[in-house]
Amino acid sequence: MTDQMRRIALASRPEGAPRPENFRLETAPVPEPGKGEVLVRVQYMSLDPYMRGRMDDAKSYAAPVPIGGTMEAGGVGEVIASHSPDLKPGDQVFGMFGWATHAVQPAKMLRKLDPAHGPVTAALGVLGMPGFTGWHGLTEYGRPKSGETLVVAAATGPVGSMVGQVAKGLGLRTVGIAGGADKCKIATETFGFDACLDHRAHATASELRKALAAECPKGVDIYFENVGGKVLEAVFPLINPHGRIPICGMIAWYNAGNLGAGAAEEKLTAPALWRSILVKFLSVNGFIISNHWDRFPAFLAEIGPKVASGEIAHLEDIAEGLENAPETFIGLLQGRNLGKQIVKIA
Amino acid sequence: MTDQMRRIALASRPEGAPRPENFRLETAPVPEPGKGEVLVRVQYMSLDPYMRGRMDDAKSYAAPVPIGGTMEAGGVGEVIASHSPDLKPGDQVFGMFGWATHAVQPAKMLRKLDPAHGPVTAALGVLGMPGFTGWHGLTEYGRPKSGETLVVAAATGPVGSMVGQVAKGLGLRTVGIAGGADKCKIATETFGFDACLDHRAHATASELRKALAAECPKGVDIYFENVGGKVLEAVFPLINPHGRIPICGMIAWYNAGNLGAGAAEEKLTAPALWRSILVKFLSVNGFIISNHWDRFPAFLAEIGPKVASGEIAHLEDIAEGLENAPETFIGLLQGRNLGKQIVKIA
Repeated sequence: MTDQMRRIALASRPEGAPRPENFRLETAPVPEPGKGEVLVRVQYMSLDPYMRGRMDDAKSYAAPVPIGGTMEAGGVGEVIASHSPDLKPGDQVFGMFGWATHAVQPAKMLRKLDPAHGPVTAALGVLGMPGFTGWHGLTEYGRPKSGETLVVAAATGPVGSMVGQVAKGLGLRTVGIAGGADKCKIATETFGFDACLDHRAHATASELRKALAAECPKGVDIYFENVGGKVLEAVFPLINPHGRIPICGMIAWYNAGNLGAGAAEEKLTAPALWRSILVKFLSVNGFIISNHWDRFPAFLAEIGPKVASGEIAHLEDIAEGLENAPETFIGLLQGRNLGKQIVKIA
Repeated sequence: MTDQMRRIALASRPEGAPRPENFRLETAPVPEPGKGEVLVRVQYMSLDPYMRGRMDDAKSYAAPVPIGGTMEAGGVGEVIASHSPDLKPGDQVFGMFGWATHAVQPAKMLRKLDPAHGPVTAALGVLGMPGFTGWHGLTEYGRPKSGETLVVAAATGPVGSMVGQVAKGLGLRTVGIAGGADKCKIATETFGFDACLDHRAHATASELRKALAAECPKGVDIYFENVGGKVLEAVFPLINPHGRIPICGMIAWYNAGNLGAGAAEEKLTAPALWRSILVKFLSVNGFIISNHWDRFPAFLAEIGPKVASGEIAHLEDIAEGLENAPETFIGLLQGRNLGKQIVKIA
C-alpha cells in the first residue's frame, strides 16, 4: 500500500502566462483521516481556466493559493479509508481534492456519485461545475426566448457547449466562436451550433465582428461571456436592445496582469461600455457558480437524463499523469484542449 | 384669443455643452385639432437631462430631434379645444407637448390629471417620469434590503431624492452626492439622507472615494447610476460583492462627445470594469422608464398618497417663460437648479 502521495504546489506567482517553473511536484506522506473524515485516492482531476485567477494574489472572489500550497482543483476519486458513517471504502466521490494523488476531507464536503449519471468523469464537466455554470448562467441571467440569437465563445468547451445545446433546445439561433477550424466543425456537428466562427481566422475584433454580423442577421440577444478580450469587443456593438450578458469568466484577460487598457485591442472604453448598457437597456450579471448550489439538484434533474440519452453531447480531453498537469494547464489557457480538460491521476 | 403660438426649435447640434445659439424661438399659427385630437395650452414644461441626448444624432434609445424640429419635453396643460369624447375643455392633462406654448395631440396620448394627486406640476417630477424612474429602478433592479447601503448622486434632483426616500423607508443607509453645500443640507434635512457629500469639495475621484468610504463603513450595496463620470469612478471600487447598479442616466458624460477614454479622469478601463462585474457578482441593468409604463399605476398607488401626506418630500425649481427655457436647460446640465426643473409657460 502506498504511504507516499504526490501533489503539485504553487512554486511562484506567474507574471502573465504561467510557466512550468511556477509549479512544483512534491511528495508527502499520505495523511490519516480524522473523525468524520475520509481518505480518497484521486482518479481524475479537473483543469479549468478559473485556476489561473487563484495563482494571483489580486483581490478576487476566492482567496489565492498561497505560495507552497497545493493547487486547487475538483476531482473524482475512490474512498479508501473512512472515519465517517456516511461513506465507505469503494464509494466514488466528487470533491475539491486539489492537484494531488490523495486527499483527506470531511465526508460532508464530498458528493457521492450516482453511477446512473454515467462515467465518473462527467462529474467534472458536463454534469459538474462547468456544465452547471453554463446552464445556470443561461437560464437565470440569459433569460432565453425562442427565436432569439445567442453567441458564446469557447464553444467546444464544457461551458460553451452546454450553453449552446440548452439554448438550441429552447429554439434560439446559436452562434459559437472557437479557436481553429477543427473546433468549429465539432461545434456545429457535435454540439449543434447553427454556425461557428474561428477567431484565429479573424485577426482583429472588427474583422471578427463583420463575420459575426453575417451569422447574426437579427443581432445578438444573449452574449454569454466567458472569454472577454477580442471576442467581447467584436460582439458588443452587435448586441440588441434588451440584450443580456451573463458573465462567468474572461479567460482572454486572465494572463493580462492588471487588465489595463492595453489589454483591449480596440480600446473599448469604460464610458462607452457603460453608455451602451444604458442606451440598449442591457442586463449584465457576473456570477460564480459556487454561490448557486441550491439550483444544482434542478440542474441534475433536467440535464442528467439528457446526458444519459445522448441528447446533450459532451467531449472530454483526458491527459495522463499528475506530473503533466502543469503543462496541460498551460495548454488549456492557450486553447490546446478539445473539450473538457481532465487529468487521469490513477 | 391667441392664434399664434411660440415654440423652441433645435437650431443646430451642440458640440459638447449646449449654447444659446443651438436653440431658436419661433412663432407659428396655433394648429387646429383633428378628429380624436385636442388642443392644449401648456402651463408648465419639464426640463430633464435626457434632452441633451436628443440633441445629438448619435444612435441611442430614441430618435434625435431633427434640426428645425421642436425640442422634446413633457408638460402639463389645459385642454382648450377638443374633438375627442374623452377630454373636454378645462381638463388638466400631461403629455409630450415639447418646448412650446400650445400643442395638438391625440387624446389617447394624454393622461388626465387627478387633482387628488396635488398640484399639476407634480406630474412632471415626483409623480411623473423622474419619480417613477427612481422608484422603478430601485425596486426592480436595485432589489433593496434593509440594512444595506445605497449611494445615489444628484440627490436633491427628482430621481435621486425619490431613490433616497424610498430606500430610507425600506431601512437602508442612504448616502447622497450633490453639487454644493446647500444641496447637501437639503439632501439630509428635506430628503432624509443619512449623509450627503459635496462632489465639488472633492476635486478627484479618489478624494471623493475616501470621503464616501468613511460614510459607507459597510461598503455600497446599491449604486443607483444617474451621473457617470467622477462619481462612478469614486463609487465603483467601494461596491460590495452582489452589488446592484441600476443605470438610468449619466449626465456627467452627456456633454462629452463620443465618451472616449478622456472623459474619465482616472481611466477606469473597460476590462477592469468588466472584471469587477464578474468577481463581485454585480448586477448591472440599464433602463429607460418609457419601456415600463405597465408599472406606472403601481407607482402612483404607492407613492401618490405618500406625496399627498408629505411622507415623500419634493422640491421644484420653477423658471418663468418659454423664452428662458434654453438658458435654464444649460443651467440644469451644470447643476444650477435646486430640485425638479420646471418652466412656467402660461
